[in-house]
Amino acid sequence: MTDYRDFYRGRKVLVTGGLGFIGSNLCRTLADLGAQVLAVDSLLPDYGGNLFNLAGYEDRVRINVADVRGHGMQYLVRGQEVLFNLAGQVSHVDSMTDPFTDLEINCTSQLWILEAVRKQNPDLKVVYAGTRQIYGKPRYLPVDENHLLTPTDVNGINKISGEFYHLVYHSVYGLRASSLRLTNTYGPRQLIRHDRQGFIGWFVRKAVLGEEIQIFGDGQQKRDFDYVDDVVDAFLRAGATDSSDGQVFNLGGDEPTSLLDLVKMLVEIAGRGSFTLVPFPPERKRIDIGDFYADASRIRQTLGWQPRVRLREGLERTIAYYREHKERYL
Amino acid sequence: MTDYRDFYRGRKVLVTGGLGFIGSNLCRTLADLGAQVLAVDSLLPDYGGNLFNLAGYEDRVRINVADVRGHGMQYLVRGQEVLFNLAGQVSHVDSMTDPFTDLEINCTSQLWILEAVRKQNPDLKVVYAGTRQIYGKPRYLPVDENHLLTPTDVNGINKISGEFYHLVYHSVYGLRASSLRLTNTYGPRQLIRHDRQGFIGWFVRKAVLGEEIQIFGDGQQKRDFDYVDDVVDAFLRAGATDSSDGQVFNLGGDEPTSLLDLVKMLVEIAGRGSFTLVPFPPERKRIDIGDFYADASRIRQTLGWQPRVRLREGLERTIAYYREHKERYL
Repeated sequence: MTDYRDFYRGRKVLVTGGLGFIGSNLCRTLADLGAQVLAVDSLLPDYGGNLFNLAGYEDRVRINVADVRGHGMQYLVRGQEVLFNLAGQVSHVDSMTDPFTDLEINCTSQLWILEAVRKQNPDLKVVYAGTRQIYGKPRYLPVDENHLLTPTDVNGINKISGEFYHLVYHSVYGLRASSLRLTNTYGPRQLIRHDRQGFIGWFVRKAVLGEEIQIFGDGQQKRDFDYVDDVVDAFLRAGATDSSDGQVFNLGGDEPTSLLDLVKMLVEIAGRGSFTLVPFPPERKRIDIGDFYADASRIRQTLGWQPRVRLREGLERTIAYYREHKERYL
Repeated sequence: MTDYRDFYRGRKVLVTGGLGFIGSNLCRTLADLGAQVLAVDSLLPDYGGNLFNLAGYEDRVRINVADVRGHGMQYLVRGQEVLFNLAGQVSHVDSMTDPFTDLEINCTSQLWILEAVRKQNPDLKVVYAGTRQIYGKPRYLPVDENHLLTPTDVNGINKISGEFYHLVYHSVYGLRASSLRLTNTYGPRQLIRHDRQGFIGWFVRKAVLGEEIQIFGDGQQKRDFDYVDDVVDAFLRAGATDSSDGQVFNLGGDEPTSLLDLVKMLVEIAGRGSFTLVPFPPERKRIDIGDFYADASRIRQTLGWQPRVRLREGLERTIAYYREHKERYL
């Protein structure tokens, strides 16, 4: 896997959700590596797609604004060599208030994409953005890929389907599909305008603005965190090798960190802001999963991946980014 | 659980898929027990709904032909006390040729039903018809409820979602929902016109017609079988007690039986027909799961259920039924 970055030079690569948080970071790196990148994004309001995320790369990444639901994908997948499939609805809270939309975006969309690949470009390599959310509340820690799936919300359920569709299209049709089960990802280009796409972006926002961060519960919940560049690296590795076909891989963080320690670090780095512990709102408590951290040994062994950016360093870069581009994200 | 049958006297009970195989048998028994039964069925062609399945019960079961997708359920759930939720698309092969329809019927429909219950009748007791298909190819036998879910086709994936929606609506909204993971069910009132709803109905058809039964592979695949009356009994038990809320239960058969032994028994009972071993067609092989039989100790311990009808006896009743009503099913 030493040359997995070289692999992308001159390759035609399609990224769905390419204007979103992880998708845009991936597109930028791919362009830097010399790939011919096509970013497809629906730019649905509130979902994370942001044209500014590809600022400076307008000449090197082709942007196609489109919903992946529908026949358009039948055209867009043609001639591509790798598909990084990151389009999705990521808000757990939204999935409960509007489960039908979550189903459309996270399930129906995936069928449109996979049917397009199967019919138009069955040799296309596909890497799907899965999530640790499908495990639900851990029965043991760290959570490995054999852990039972007990999702706590509709989003977790629909993300299971999205991943399983990929695996079944691999086993039945031989599609070269795999899935990375992402844990909490943070870094530049995340949507931080509202608090419905995970707590870390929201905490970053509060720190940048010097506001008070509310931590639900006692703050002792441990989680693992990946800086977005490390997640991009995992996608690049998975996309460049046949050994990922038909596989699922946990990503894991550097070291499990309590939310309280995370917030203290954020406030310290930002040099402003504060925090307070508040009781869980009932609608959040019901879908909270307590401690979570993943066993990432499979991806380390198979793809040689491990997180490189330490939490403090990643948070410093993150805060610096949003300070510089405040008006684009706040 | 001695009085679980008395529980239904005078109760208002809604059965989705009430004109289908298991649904109609359940409606008939419920009517016999004195329940006020409302059978909702879309009567979609080829899905198993059959008006003849409620023959003789027209005065005791109210039939409402409707698709469960849409706002109609908001009305139909009102005032009901128990909902047996059996509407679904059960063909694995169809789910691969038309994954979007399978998604609509097995996922979108379930959200319509659960949203209706949540908004209009949150105290309604709900029992969902799950399936052993969600386990996929067993990693160990017998398969208990903690077995990993590795579905081999789109139907298996969407049935996982259907079940998980019920569990999440239980944990988040407190809906009194549970799921029975059915294994191979056989008996009167099954669709046996085509071979896309499981092998057993198809084998029964062939035996009744005195035709040759083709067994894929060497016939040594072991499965467990439940006569439909036993499955009805499991639904009645789950619907009559709070101890099922939020739970999933495997059903299991009497004794694992090879397909070859099953077919020999069928031919012997029918007194006609024959069988031959043929290689798996590739599209079936890819979604075949080999041996499967379930560990049903949880439902035995919690609800006191176990199968009562031996395979031979059940097959005798089944053959007799289709002989008598040949023109309605063949």
